[in-house]
Amino acid sequence: MSLRFTLLCLVMLSVRVGAQSPDVGVNGARLNATMQHMHTFGENADGGSDRVAYSIHNRVALEYLSELMRETGLVPRFDVAGNLVGHRTGRIEGLAPILAGSHIDTVPNGGHYDGIVGVMSAIEAARTLKENGIELDHPLEVVVWSNEEGGKTGSRSWAGTVQERELDLPSLGDKTLGEGMAYIGGEPKNLARNTRRPGDVAGYIELHVEQGAILDRQGIAIGVVEGIVGIKRWYITVRGFANHAGTTPMDQRQDALYATALMLTEIRRIITGESGRQVGTVGRLDVNPGAPNVIPGEVLFSLEIRDLSMEKVTRLFVQIERSLSDIALMNDVEVSFDQYYESPETPTDIGIQNLVRESAAALGLSSFDMPSGAGHDGQSMKGIAPLGMIFVPSKDGVSHAPTEFTSEEQIINGANVLLRTIIGMDQLLK
Amino acid sequence: MSLRFTLLCLVMLSVRVGAQSPDVGVNGARLNATMQHMHTFGENADGGSDRVAYSIHNRVALEYLSELMRETGLVPRFDVAGNLVGHRTGRIEGLAPILAGSHIDTVPNGGHYDGIVGVMSAIEAARTLKENGIELDHPLEVVVWSNEEGGKTGSRSWAGTVQERELDLPSLGDKTLGEGMAYIGGEPKNLARNTRRPGDVAGYIELHVEQGAILDRQGIAIGVVEGIVGIKRWYITVRGFANHAGTTPMDQRQDALYATALMLTEIRRIITGESGRQVGTVGRLDVNPGAPNVIPGEVLFSLEIRDLSMEKVTRLFVQIERSLSDIALMNDVEVSFDQYYESPETPTDIGIQNLVRESAAALGLSSFDMPSGAGHDGQSMKGIAPLGMIFVPSKDGVSHAPTEFTSEEQIINGANVLLRTIIGMDQLLK
Repeated sequence: MSLRFTLLCLVMLSVRVGAQSPDVGVNGARLNATMQHMHTFGENADGGSDRVAYSIHNRVALEYLSELMRETGLVPRFDVAGNLVGHRTGRIEGLAPILAGSHIDTVPNGGHYDGIVGVMSAIEAARTLKENGIELDHPLEVVVWSNEEGGKTGSRSWAGTVQERELDLPSLGDKTLGEGMAYIGGEPKNLARNTRRPGDVAGYIELHVEQGAILDRQGIAIGVVEGIVGIKRWYITVRGFANHAGTTPMDQRQDALYATALMLTEIRRIITGESGRQVGTVGRLDVNPGAPNVIPGEVLFSLEIRDLSMEKVTRLFVQIERSLSDIALMNDVEVSFDQYYESPETPTDIGIQNLVRESAAALGLSSFDMPSGAGHDGQSMKGIAPLGMIFVPSKDGVSHAPTEFTSEEQIINGANVLLRTIIGMDQLLK
Repeated sequence: MSLRFTLLCLVMLSVRVGAQSPDVGVNGARLNATMQHMHTFGENADGGSDRVAYSIHNRVALEYLSELMRETGLVPRFDVAGNLVGHRTGRIEGLAPILAGSHIDTVPNGGHYDGIVGVMSAIEAARTLKENGIELDHPLEVVVWSNEEGGKTGSRSWAGTVQERELDLPSLGDKTLGEGMAYIGGEPKNLARNTRRPGDVAGYIELHVEQGAILDRQGIAIGVVEGIVGIKRWYITVRGFANHAGTTPMDQRQDALYATALMLTEIRRIITGESGRQVGTVGRLDVNPGAPNVIPGEVLFSLEIRDLSMEKVTRLFVQIERSLSDIALMNDVEVSFDQYYESPETPTDIGIQNLVRESAAALGLSSFDMPSGAGHDGQSMKGIAPLGMIFVPSKDGVSHAPTEFTSEEQIINGANVLLRTIIGMDQLLK
């Protein structure tokens, strides 16, 4: 056959597969059986999961997943960051792989769904493709990112943003990040080898539980993720004067905590003062000296603002900064702002969004366009490959807790949308 | 001489002494030299004092004071609580002693004036009486109370309110209260022997630095203490729901810290909403879980209210309780109140107040009637003996810190008012 004829055949085959896909579906019972089997790796007495990154439970679970990948036609290997990547060859040589996956590490006493749903569904999707004899033009790689909960270290190594000094930092378990990577099969010394350039990956798709209650409360099956929100975090310090709570008259106080209370109500007013889905949170607050009989001399609190538009995050902060400075002035205290964290927003690919929405519709499932308020490994794909994300409901929006729950049916729905989206991406991304 | 004639002579002598008192004055240079010498017992590198109760510094200082008492005609002994009491005989047999004193223990890294001014001035007053040949009808006892800063243990032993189990509690130093008492010369096993009954003490007078800035800011020499305020303290718990700061929309939050901020501003509004010198303080506040990216699920904070009228303290709390419950309801959180401390108000004796005011006036010193917002050993005299307190200014109201300062002149003024007040009490309390 001439090369031209070969290519023509391939295109026709592709079209055939595209047409075929509506009838393809994952084996839901098998998928949920593998979900259940994952419980065994690190389940604690509370019913939660202690499978923190680089723990023995994490390592044994990865061995199980390697075996499972082999059974499903994926060739597993660990990359230098300890990411487990299962490779399936594509029909067209030279195409970059389509990547699907998530993570299996949990926070201490975490749940059995956050991350795990995405990994097990991606493996099941690959198995379904194999069983149905569906070949893709692109290679398919199922990835299990390492240490998502402890800082997305695995996926960030692909973005080339893991600093050498991070390897000496403690992980959520008993090892440093460097020790942990080596423990699960990586080569931290050679981490730079992981860096991907634009085009090295055709596209990345991740199925994940929604870590809010939007889908659950509205009874919607599928969240079409518009992007991962940008985040900025500050520490704000309010300095008054610590003094005797009995002997200092009310009108002579420079009470850092009272001024802070006024600031917290003002922050809420500003965040909710304009329409949109921005969120603002004060989650940490430390009072010094912190004794019942001493007027607080200093308060440190965190402020976090998230939105799909970083411009909006910044604009809201400027308003807050101005208002809080006024409150400080009126209450004879000082306030200072120290931004210590910034994570830019990561929009998802419009084409992949459409595939997710259409796949849900073809399966008769309801869907809802929404931002991801939580961070995900997909952020690391920014500038490297088009990104897509699919959400399934999480009961009451709970995550990072033993009570985290997504039903078997909801997982099957998500896996089928993932399967169809992968098949669609194979066409879309060529 | 007949008994009647003897008594008549004594009465005439008393009158003569009363008339004589305006010319009597302490030796200010000597007084301030002893104040300076006290620095040597526990001064640290910051210039502060580490003479915490029951420390080696405390013990050595008490040995110095015993010696000083002997020089000034006082017979020193340690009572079973480790209080150092210097006794001077009175002219009329069977009269209860007039008691004057304070404490010399400090908080860790405390100052050189809080308590010390009162002790050194009382010793100097006794010395002045001796040098001027002034005898009193009552015995005079100069007392150095033990462990004021760690819970007024010494004076409370006179009130009979020290519980046996307290002796096993840690002091501010490295000993238990029981060990500490024994270390400085007490007999903790026999603590009950210290209990005084009404009439066992004729009256108690204490000179102390004002631990606020009222006198200092107004340039007033002498505070006439109207009483020691009553105190109530509560822990207030606000329970919301800890949730993901990125994925939980603003209108679905049960943010315990935001509700608390509203409560803190409301508390301030209620405390300052009526005239008077009541104070209300939120000094401690703990946020759970306390992470920048988690909506606070629970906040615990302290509330303290002080006033000379306990009825007012209670009335203000009832208002606060009602308002905070409303705020909780409106913000979908729960609030609960747990009172854990109560110290009743202790009014001072009107007669002794007059003596202090008149003594200041006779010396050409300004004075100001005021409550003591801080607690003092004198509270233990409630129900046992009439109480008086004299305040001298403390620069900027600072106390419990190395920068605590009262000038030599202010100390001399206070000591002279103390001396005259003691002489006056000798007449008043017969």
